[in-house]
Amino acid sequence: MKLIRLLSITALFVVILTLPSLAADPLPSWNDGKVKQSIVAFVEKVTKEGSSNFVPVAERIATFDNDGTLWAEQPMYFQLAFALDRVKALAPQHPEWKDKEPFASLLKGDVKGALAGGEPAIFQIVMATHAGMTTAEFEQIVKDWIATAKHPTKKRLYTEMVYQPMLELLTYLRANGFKTFIVSGGGIEFMRPWTEKVYGIPPEQVVGSSIKTKVELRDGKPVLVRLPELNFIDDKTGKPVGINQHIGRCPILAFGNSDGDQQMLEWTEAGSGLRFMGLVHHTDADREWAYDRKSHIGTLDKALYEANAKGWTVVDMKKDWKTVFPAMK
Amino acid sequence: MKLIRLLSITALFVVILTLPSLAADPLPSWNDGKVKQSIVAFVEKVTKEGSSNFVPVAERIATFDNDGTLWAEQPMYFQLAFALDRVKALAPQHPEWKDKEPFASLLKGDVKGALAGGEPAIFQIVMATHAGMTTAEFEQIVKDWIATAKHPTKKRLYTEMVYQPMLELLTYLRANGFKTFIVSGGGIEFMRPWTEKVYGIPPEQVVGSSIKTKVELRDGKPVLVRLPELNFIDDKTGKPVGINQHIGRCPILAFGNSDGDQQMLEWTEAGSGLRFMGLVHHTDADREWAYDRKSHIGTLDKALYEANAKGWTVVDMKKDWKTVFPAMK
Repeated sequence: MKLIRLLSITALFVVILTLPSLAADPLPSWNDGKVKQSIVAFVEKVTKEGSSNFVPVAERIATFDNDGTLWAEQPMYFQLAFALDRVKALAPQHPEWKDKEPFASLLKGDVKGALAGGEPAIFQIVMATHAGMTTAEFEQIVKDWIATAKHPTKKRLYTEMVYQPMLELLTYLRANGFKTFIVSGGGIEFMRPWTEKVYGIPPEQVVGSSIKTKVELRDGKPVLVRLPELNFIDDKTGKPVGINQHIGRCPILAFGNSDGDQQMLEWTEAGSGLRFMGLVHHTDADREWAYDRKSHIGTLDKALYEANAKGWTVVDMKKDWKTVFPAMK
Repeated sequence: MKLIRLLSITALFVVILTLPSLAADPLPSWNDGKVKQSIVAFVEKVTKEGSSNFVPVAERIATFDNDGTLWAEQPMYFQLAFALDRVKALAPQHPEWKDKEPFASLLKGDVKGALAGGEPAIFQIVMATHAGMTTAEFEQIVKDWIATAKHPTKKRLYTEMVYQPMLELLTYLRANGFKTFIVSGGGIEFMRPWTEKVYGIPPEQVVGSSIKTKVELRDGKPVLVRLPELNFIDDKTGKPVGINQHIGRCPILAFGNSDGDQQMLEWTEAGSGLRFMGLVHHTDADREWAYDRKSHIGTLDKALYEANAKGWTVVDMKKDWKTVFPAMK
């Protein structure tokens, strides 16, 4: 009797498993239309065995920019917000900052004044806040900040400033055998502490900008100390270099949102076989922000001309996304 | 009637799947003894759910040196053999090499004389043979060489100079949820074209030394050109740096064979929880080679003292390996 019950249950599973797929829409936050169709059509083509467009699982590499592509980047890159918060936190240990720019302006609350020094000012702020500690210490600092810091206007945790449609896209790609990577101009060690939890992307699949590190012994144990010296800038022509260095294969799908991603998309397109190049166009001033050619953050100018000329997929955030941010927990 | 047959077959599978594991020995080329036991015991402990030593799948990172650990390295690093072959192949395009060291000696067949110039000579040979082409062109050059070049004394393809027991170990680890990486002083782009086929390790899980690359447009398409400029040396203290840069997590198991791996093993040991540090000791002059402290290639001196002092696992090739190389195809 028991055996018969077991067999019946097993048979039920067999029937369920062999039924034609009645799967729910894997991209429910994407409005129906050309953009969504272009994504689904691409995935269906490269995963269809026997088709001329078929790509083996091992070669299904997908790369995503982070700032402005997977999470928001206004009114300033979130990593810069982190750095500014760190300047405030570290100020008691640096009395000299009171009289030293860009720190002096920052500590008076004058962010604009501090950043008026341009790249050299930002470089100073980044090095003062990102170097000088071990990699393990920095990881903990990032974890603590990301768990509590909130966006100045949206009042959400930064990890709740990610795009729900892109989360669905990452999951959809992985369900179809893709390996998903981040390829960002942001700091590799700033992203790794939270990308697995937030995006399902493990540390070894994060490519980003970095500073140099070196081994030191502390209490007889090796640690890696972060040095105030640039190692690699993973932006613009750096993106193909970073992809090659880290992944060693050309992506077949890449998504960005700015001119900093142009070379990554061109590199993706240059490979043989079917390729997917996508850009997120920030067109939604109500739910997110609307900006492109004239924005200093996430400038989208040349890449947009190229996308239109070549028929890359351009996501019109306002039109193509049913939801922008995930529901708050 | 048909349904009953289906149910019977299904029931059979259910029975098979629920039988206690009667799996064959996953490491048949390892002789029974302390070393094999230490490997199996480690894997069983970290994969046992609920145990204090349990490690989640995502954190099961295993790193392997390549030269002398996964494949042989005598009488010279195989990548150097590749470079020497390339000098010969490129000589017609470089008439000036006839009068220029180290090339002149090399082309006369005097390898020892050519290498007498030490590191600067080797640097010249490597840059002359590894730079100046696109990454795609270099990949093809490596593929062509590795498919045909044979070891000078063993008369095997270099990809048949890999260690059968280590192939089994890689497979065994992956079957237990480990992600296996190569972390080698060898060139990252020299390994990637064949590591997936030979070791089951995909390009994105290969960490190695590298030269710089830059994007160029050729016929309107971007290519990456290999520059005669060092980017990163993945050896000694470079190994923890490379592991952190590329993987972003500390391995829980690491295997090497020389003093060049010492810092990787120390870095692995420094993490919290159960860790496995292994060294291959080349003790088999009959089947492979016997060398350690006094060898210029794969010097094993300080790391051997440390392994003995700390109780790391030291593989005695002669004693612990039933087979060294795989059967020739």
